Amino acid sequence: MKVSIIGATGYAGAELLRLLAGHPGAEVVHLTSESYTGKPVSEVYPHLAGLYDQRLESLDDLERIGADSDFIFIGLPAGHAMEIGRKLAGQPVRIIDLGADYRFRDIATYEAWYKVRHTHPEARRVYGLAELYREDIRTAPIIGNAGCYTTASILALAPLVKNGLIDLKTVVVDAASGVSGAGRSAKLPNHFPELYDNFKAYGAVSHRHTPEIEQALTDLGGEAVTLNFTPHLVPMSRGILATAYAMLRDGVTETAVDEAFRTLYAGEYFIRLRGRGSYPETKYVRGSNFCDLGWHIDPRTHRVIVFSAIDNLVKGAAGQAVQNFNIAAGFDETLGLKLAPVYP
Amino acid sequence: MKVSIIGATGYAGAELLRLLAGHPGAEVVHLTSESYTGKPVSEVYPHLAGLYDQRLESLDDLERIGADSDFIFIGLPAGHAMEIGRKLAGQPVRIIDLGADYRFRDIATYEAWYKVRHTHPEARRVYGLAELYREDIRTAPIIGNAGCYTTASILALAPLVKNGLIDLKTVVVDAASGVSGAGRSAKLPNHFPELYDNFKAYGAVSHRHTPEIEQALTDLGGEAVTLNFTPHLVPMSRGILATAYAMLRDGVTETAVDEAFRTLYAGEYFIRLRGRGSYPETKYVRGSNFCDLGWHIDPRTHRVIVFSAIDNLVKGAAGQAVQNFNIAAGFDETLGLKLAPVYP
Amino acid sequence: MKVSIIGATGYAGAELLRLLAGHPGAEVVHLTSESYTGKPVSEVYPHLAGLYDQRLESLDDLERIGADSDFIFIGLPAGHAMEIGRKLAGQPVRIIDLGADYRFRDIATYEAWYKVRHTHPEARRVYGLAELYREDIRTAPIIGNAGCYTTASILALAPLVKNGLIDLKTVVVDAASGVSGAGRSAKLPNHFPELYDNFKAYGAVSHRHTPEIEQALTDLGGEAVTLNFTPHLVPMSRGILATAYAMLRDGVTETAVDEAFRTLYAGEYFIRLRGRGSYPETKYVRGSNFCDLGWHIDPRTHRVIVFSAIDNLVKGAAGQAVQNFNIAAGFDETLGLKLAPVYP
Amino acid sequence: MKVSIIGATGYAGAELLRLLAGHPGAEVVHLTSESYTGKPVSEVYPHLAGLYDQRLESLDDLERIGADSDFIFIGLPAGHAMEIGRKLAGQPVRIIDLGADYRFRDIATYEAWYKVRHTHPEARRVYGLAELYREDIRTAPIIGNAGCYTTASILALAPLVKNGLIDLKTVVVDAASGVSGAGRSAKLPNHFPELYDNFKAYGAVSHRHTPEIEQALTDLGGEAVTLNFTPHLVPMSRGILATAYAMLRDGVTETAVDEAFRTLYAGEYFIRLRGRGSYPETKYVRGSNFCDLGWHIDPRTHRVIVFSAIDNLVKGAAGQAVQNFNIAAGFDETLGLKLAPVYP
Repeated sequence: MKVSIIGATGYAGAELLRLLAGHPGAEVVHLTSESYTGKPVSEVYPHLAGLYDQRLESLDDLERIGADSDFIFIGLPAGHAMEIGRKLAGQPVRIIDLGADYRFRDIATYEAWYKVRHTHPEARRVYGLAELYREDIRTAPIIGNAGCYTTASILALAPLVKNGLIDLKTVVVDAASGVSGAGRSAKLPNHFPELYDNFKAYGAVSHRHTPEIEQALTDLGGEAVTLNFTPHLVPMSRGILATAYAMLRDGVTETAVDEAFRTLYAGEYFIRLRGRGSYPETKYVRGSNFCDLGWHIDPRTHRVIVFSAIDNLVKGAAGQAVQNFNIAAGFDETLGLKLAPVYP
Repeated sequence: MKVSIIGATGYAGAELLRLLAGHPGAEVVHLTSESYTGKPVSEVYPHLAGLYDQRLESLDDLERIGADSDFIFIGLPAGHAMEIGRKLAGQPVRIIDLGADYRFRDIATYEAWYKVRHTHPEARRVYGLAELYREDIRTAPIIGNAGCYTTASILALAPLVKNGLIDLKTVVVDAASGVSGAGRSAKLPNHFPELYDNFKAYGAVSHRHTPEIEQALTDLGGEAVTLNFTPHLVPMSRGILATAYAMLRDGVTETAVDEAFRTLYAGEYFIRLRGRGSYPETKYVRGSNFCDLGWHIDPRTHRVIVFSAIDNLVKGAAGQAVQNFNIAAGFDETLGLKLAPVYP
Repeated sequence: MKVSIIGATGYAGAELLRLLAGHPGAEVVHLTSESYTGKPVSEVYPHLAGLYDQRLESLDDLERIGADSDFIFIGLPAGHAMEIGRKLAGQPVRIIDLGADYRFRDIATYEAWYKVRHTHPEARRVYGLAELYREDIRTAPIIGNAGCYTTASILALAPLVKNGLIDLKTVVVDAASGVSGAGRSAKLPNHFPELYDNFKAYGAVSHRHTPEIEQALTDLGGEAVTLNFTPHLVPMSRGILATAYAMLRDGVTETAVDEAFRTLYAGEYFIRLRGRGSYPETKYVRGSNFCDLGWHIDPRTHRVIVFSAIDNLVKGAAGQAVQNFNIAAGFDETLGLKLAPVYP
Repeated sequence: MKVSIIGATGYAGAELLRLLAGHPGAEVVHLTSESYTGKPVSEVYPHLAGLYDQRLESLDDLERIGADSDFIFIGLPAGHAMEIGRKLAGQPVRIIDLGADYRFRDIATYEAWYKVRHTHPEARRVYGLAELYREDIRTAPIIGNAGCYTTASILALAPLVKNGLIDLKTVVVDAASGVSGAGRSAKLPNHFPELYDNFKAYGAVSHRHTPEIEQALTDLGGEAVTLNFTPHLVPMSRGILATAYAMLRDGVTETAVDEAFRTLYAGEYFIRLRGRGSYPETKYVRGSNFCDLGWHIDPRTHRVIVFSAIDNLVKGAAGQAVQNFNIAAGFDETLGLKLAPVYP
């Protein structure tokens, strides 16, 4: 399959290049970047020297790029992908957008949280979280690749919500991410000395991944879910750990909880159930497409606590995109993704 | 005042030495360590070279150490301080224990969570969190210095609980600490490569700081509080950020919340209210005795979220101990503690 | 090829497992560990869950392990591999030792620096640095895989020494490594809070990689080389940067230096010449088998400075071992090793 | 003494504020910043909340600021301080410049390395490294505070050069710094994910601290010194370790080397001699004004290796400035600077 990356010089783009370098079913044909047009990608990312010699192109040539490609990955800030999707709407090329433009079924939700008008609301699209929306991904022309925090959060709560084990009014997700999640633009808050040996929260009550988690849980639970999602910034490069809290419904047993996880994720290569009482660590999954899950039940408070660890750039972005690509292209879902985590 | 430190070679002991080096009202007379008896403390902690030339003594000489000292700070694992307290019970020396032995009013709670029998239950003791128990600290012979996570958590929630603003059944505290909180003994989980670029939780539903937070909130709220407290480990040396969640009671306004913080902490030198909508960072307080607080209200879910940042070795241990010492000794509460945070 | 790992639970062993998981020409048959005998390797290294389900065996069964394997990788502290080599001497199995026992041609040098008697001096062995000793590696029964600092240092200086461009009495190598190079045993100096936000040197004038660098440069230069090698510890998990200094011989031009690098490393997949004036970074090679080189010439002092970056666990250990394995087994040298670096 | 800080919002300015907050002989009257004019300094640096409530002023008011102040500290990029010095030349206010403008006796050297014309060459100035130029500092109207790398490097080599123990043609200084040394402006190379878990060199053969080290060593040795200085960047916030190499002159004994260090630094509060065979660590001095020194002699190569650790923002900038201020103002040299290092 011929693939191109629009917005190849963000961290997610670079991670796609790392993964595609070892993927036997993909040939990278075009890479675009408006900031570095004309430069070799290996100059922008020296770690790719010897692996890629392409030069970065401009988006101006979108038509041709679309015509040359079976799949296009988009790694641009919110608001840009829908323009590209609209322009390519007549072409056979399929789109996997790593941003938020195509993640929402309800356009009004998107517009309310992202504060822009959606310009491609009629697009036939699917939410790109393979473990939950696999069948639709096979044929969708546009895949709205799930976000990083959202992937960790939804996979943590899905078995509980799907099986009606928790009170949906009591969900709190407290999560923490490495700094690559904030992108590659240099800004004071992400300047090395400001973050090193430091820990902080941000985006409380307003982070845009909130409605995305709510959408998926509402799908699973059959009633509208409203929750709190609070992200934190960890002084590390990669990794997300989501800690999800909810009250168990009356009479729900430990066994029922265990069973819910085992059933939903049976046969899922990328989900590793660490089991009740365990603590997944972000380093267990670093560089890989795994999502590791552990859960705890508190008999004193009747709460369940789920820990969910992913690499934000892999299962939270580029790896998930390749997983979706594999599904959409008819490949084995794990093709090019059976990478062992890099530890320590 | 003559002071001694029992168990001087843990991180809290070393931090006490840092703070006492600049304290005009304290003279350090004895330092003990069973692991390093006979060695100069500056060999165990080379950063103290030129500041301390004392040799470490053994606890065997406890009587004499007690007789020589006006105050004894204890920095030993749970279970040891109560032995020391019992042995010194007849002496005028006062004790500030940085461990948990003297933190609980209800001995049964201590015994249930710490799995040991308390050998000094009759001790006249006070919980050493100055902002809330100041008056009792002035005269108590034994001060059970508040724990690190607990200090951050209690100070975050106290204004809300005291003013009846939250539903006490809905409290969740999600917290994260730097690794110095785990002490100085080398173990595989805290080996550098295992933690670096890694984030994980531990002690869910079972961490011993849980009942300590519950005790203080119960004092403030007038009814028994049961909550979830979940600690995480951040790849950094120092600092704690507690993120506390609770449902607001019906009709509670933003102004009422703001007012609760302002009133309770009016005139408190070490509490810095960052205000509603703010995000205190652990680096803002590093090396200092400050506790920085910020809070957010979510109109969608009616939850309040409070962020509380301290340096776990200062306001969470040695600084709080010196603050308690100042109160107990009749000094200005800030003596030797007006240190600017070390940033970046 | 059937391969086994003796001492599989050190960091180099774990890295071998990561690399072999993606190697199409190797089947892992036995893993040994004396500390964790009987446990699944994925319990000792949870990141390997889903990739390996083997249990760790004891070395007691060495004969059988040898008989089952075409190749054995050894990841044990100095002094143990020579015992294994001696015991397996009659078997066809070939050995790739990641330790120092088989690195030295001159047994007296080994014994002087490692302070133990060599018990297998008659072994037919080769120094396992593929770029310089490739031909001998093809057929050697025992390969003494080059050390981490030494690989970076030798590759930095080889072009200069081989072409007689520098004064061999003036060589200084100043190097820095991530902490995984110190192994996985928990000790106070490598306890997280002791190293985080800290930088220090160690092993000045006495580090055991010194004679290994000297041996290779003496081979290349045709006269005995004596030099200073000074390692430092960087608060990071992986990576080595060696900074090598030497005086240029009279009349040596910039062009001659450039040419020396280009000629020696022409066609070497794993050597990436960043060129004169460049600064390779350890992150450019993280997780990969690349060695990146940059060099500078100072017209004021007539010194040449070479920077050499590797991942200490890959090109400095497990990756080099697989490269040697590929050569020895008759595979393409890059089989299973064309991994893109993990950035950021 | 009334003091003001011109360019108060760089890291060195913030560190000055930290130190001056605890200095009994200094009152901070004016703080300037062109980027943040009008804002409270505690908004730019939230860690200073409760300690400073001043607003930042513009340099436009330089005359008045000069008239109000006994001392002015300048923390601006090279090229700006000489303009300020020139404008204030007629006023009694004394200047301590933390930049390079007043560090060079020979204006041509400054102009060659800094690529600007010096506009205040006639200024009566002194090089602000107290241990070596103390007498001149007492009365100089302008003090060119020594640089960070240079302080570590010069203090490492001064005893050897002053006593003629080393061959001055063989000096190499290999140094490494935490990232705060690069200042507070956000740029891609210092973006958190780019540096975390990474190590690299920069400025080889061209770093501007080279001629500054050469100037001081030439002063001490009585003959022109030309050397190599190579800086590296460590993924940490603070700290510098310089590793200095030189060949010992014939017949120089270990005792002579030890003696040289002991004699030159006898009575120096801020120099801590760790002794021969020791390894100072940057964390031993973090947050303090100490410079820790250790040295090694290699009988195989006849080289001496000196390790020198400072906190780049304290002894390498603001602490040294306060030390110079104390000397110039007639205070005890350690006033406000007897801070214990912050460990861990």
